[in-house]
Amino acid sequence: MSKLNNFSRLNSQIIATVAREFGTPIYLYDQQLIVDKCQALLAMPHAYGLTVRYAMKANSNKTLLQIINAQGLKIDASSLNEVKRALAAGIDYSDIILTTQEVPAGEEMKELQAMMLKGLKYNACSLRQLENIGDFAASSKIALAMRIHPGVGSGESASRNTGDNYSCFGIHLSDLKTALQYAAEKGIVIDHMHVHIGSGADPEMWRQNIDLELKILAEHFPQAKTVSFGGGLKETRMPDEAAADIQALGEYATQKIKQFAQQTGRKLQMEIEPGTYVIANAGYIITQVMDLKRTGEDGFNFVLLKGGMELNARPALYGSQHPFYLVSPSGKLLFSEFDPTTPRDYPIIIVGRCCESGDSQTLTPDGQTTPRPMTKPKIGELMVIGGAGAYCAAMSPFNYNSQLQAAEVLFTGNQKLKLIRRAQTFDQLLTNEI
Amino acid sequence: MSKLNNFSRLNSQIIATVAREFGTPIYLYDQQLIVDKCQALLAMPHAYGLTVRYAMKANSNKTLLQIINAQGLKIDASSLNEVKRALAAGIDYSDIILTTQEVPAGEEMKELQAMMLKGLKYNACSLRQLENIGDFAASSKIALAMRIHPGVGSGESASRNTGDNYSCFGIHLSDLKTALQYAAEKGIVIDHMHVHIGSGADPEMWRQNIDLELKILAEHFPQAKTVSFGGGLKETRMPDEAAADIQALGEYATQKIKQFAQQTGRKLQMEIEPGTYVIANAGYIITQVMDLKRTGEDGFNFVLLKGGMELNARPALYGSQHPFYLVSPSGKLLFSEFDPTTPRDYPIIIVGRCCESGDSQTLTPDGQTTPRPMTKPKIGELMVIGGAGAYCAAMSPFNYNSQLQAAEVLFTGNQKLKLIRRAQTFDQLLTNEI
Repeated sequence: MSKLNNFSRLNSQIIATVAREFGTPIYLYDQQLIVDKCQALLAMPHAYGLTVRYAMKANSNKTLLQIINAQGLKIDASSLNEVKRALAAGIDYSDIILTTQEVPAGEEMKELQAMMLKGLKYNACSLRQLENIGDFAASSKIALAMRIHPGVGSGESASRNTGDNYSCFGIHLSDLKTALQYAAEKGIVIDHMHVHIGSGADPEMWRQNIDLELKILAEHFPQAKTVSFGGGLKETRMPDEAAADIQALGEYATQKIKQFAQQTGRKLQMEIEPGTYVIANAGYIITQVMDLKRTGEDGFNFVLLKGGMELNARPALYGSQHPFYLVSPSGKLLFSEFDPTTPRDYPIIIVGRCCESGDSQTLTPDGQTTPRPMTKPKIGELMVIGGAGAYCAAMSPFNYNSQLQAAEVLFTGNQKLKLIRRAQTFDQLLTNEI
Repeated sequence: MSKLNNFSRLNSQIIATVAREFGTPIYLYDQQLIVDKCQALLAMPHAYGLTVRYAMKANSNKTLLQIINAQGLKIDASSLNEVKRALAAGIDYSDIILTTQEVPAGEEMKELQAMMLKGLKYNACSLRQLENIGDFAASSKIALAMRIHPGVGSGESASRNTGDNYSCFGIHLSDLKTALQYAAEKGIVIDHMHVHIGSGADPEMWRQNIDLELKILAEHFPQAKTVSFGGGLKETRMPDEAAADIQALGEYATQKIKQFAQQTGRKLQMEIEPGTYVIANAGYIITQVMDLKRTGEDGFNFVLLKGGMELNARPALYGSQHPFYLVSPSGKLLFSEFDPTTPRDYPIIIVGRCCESGDSQTLTPDGQTTPRPMTKPKIGELMVIGGAGAYCAAMSPFNYNSQLQAAEVLFTGNQKLKLIRRAQTFDQLLTNEI
């Protein structure tokens, strides 16, 4: 009955029950952990108000959106369809901001405008986006948000970095004068300023971004009431990682926003938009050991799972590290990345069922195949991939090799199991073919 | 009316017509090019017979399967579901081999056995797979195939390599004795031997594999009538790449299979199982320029497309290189990677619409963001991503950012446009949520 790790409420018995009752592979989410994360974020220090927006692209399941919104988090949507999904989950227009690379046109522009009239906040992320919505915003007297590209990123790999000149999110500082001149001519109010530097999550970069962003806001956004520092709060999936110190970051932001108020008399609302931080560790993939192999005396031990990259493409895409747990069919915890007393004398390479050489869950950050020390697994045992709440169900090529999108189950606050998404059927896979 | 490239029958007018009639983003396939590729493969030199199997994981669209099968190609399926899709397309059991990492159990084992009784060929890819099917194969007197892991790979990056000890596809040479002993005890006939070394596609490695495979076959498979050299025939997507010389590879294999016959009196049927080679260049993604940006004086030019990684994850996963074409809405070819007379004086980074820093179509093979020289695009122009027939529609996280799976259109042999897969609807995205 050991807990999976020290921040989890789930234990190996629950894993075995889910596998037995719902089958494998399957996603499992822990409601209470999501609630705790939401509350921790809402308790961040702030000066004159804090809005926490959940970056729903991390996981857009309807039930999960409802849980998160019920806690008091608002929504950061990355596409018009994400807005529609949030609305379909019963979330108010006024709780949603749209920050997107899309440039709505035609029917979509009409939809966007109708949504804005009902309270959707629109974050202009390019000159073109601003100019497309300009007349409507001006005539409807709807204030806009503006995403600024600060020209500096979060300092990790290019693929995690949304702030430097190798990425194009937001209105670049060099275009800011043009953008503001346009807004001024039209009489458009920009009451919300936003910068997101990426998920590299170096706290020093976060602090630098706060300083830079408040400087830009002071110089250029006299009507801004809200400053959004974006997402990218580092969450720890593996035992040796360090999560962002949201208390310290909140204190730093508080101090800077208070200084800003002393200098300008303006009391800014602070926003953040975490995705991974809210939900990554609340999610698990439960799959099963299908086969064991060894590639010769000089080779390696392999464990083949009933589900890999089609459920979690993060290792293949980004060399992401996830913790593993091994659970017997009867619910005994045999190995945990977080429990040093479970044996780790057997190095294994963990692969999925796709006919794809990249379908490994044990890649190094630079994409090399490498064994991980673990307990020797047996066929039929349950292998659990932790840290799978964010960017797994949402960002996986789930139909590769004609596999079917897996079901999603919630471990509710009152410790019940609830199916929140049915598995795709084979008929659904084919339904759009002609 | 310029053709897109020298092996294509498509031209820029057709691209514009597809965009106008079916919308963007969309996949477009050229039937005649698929047919030509099938015929080229079937015309490969061989000694005593050639079977070409299409590796359907590359693209499993029903209409495309039917076109390929009608040309005389058989099917290589990577999962039980792929077998079912091939059957649903009307393909005979006896035209399909199942080569999978899956280990069917319970109901799936019953399904597999029923399929084998109807003619499906089963390729035992692990000791466990062999032992699971052993009694049934023996009692039903059904001969099996066996996939061997040769312990050497195709020599490119680890993620393309399925033959060396860092991957686990097939029964490793070091387990061969055990496997054959088991088969002999049960009286199971292995009449088909298979090795696939990966998609690295170095022709020297292909030749070495032919030698090694025939040596293993001579030593250990007295009942084998078929030798399969797997897939991984290099196709050229970019102008500076060289495709596999299938004529030369066929001649080499012919010579070696004839030598084998002289030494043993056994006349082997040769099999190959290309996927990419059949369909990669027959497929295009037609998308549209939504936005243009520049990240400051020291920065880069960006073009934002209405669709990126959710339609083609190969650049993000493997740093894959695809050719681009720029077409005006009225059908004029403005830029082609294959036409040096179209201007290429404007370096651009091409990104998609996902809120994801990795959503770029112009990554280097090692994953760095880099500009590509091109004609300066305008908003609304059509950007076409070539070489998108294989592992795009089949292997993309198409619902990321809640985008919808794109439709697929076929340019038929008689030059008509035919919808072969409808776009996913928003309702379908939500239909399994509870």
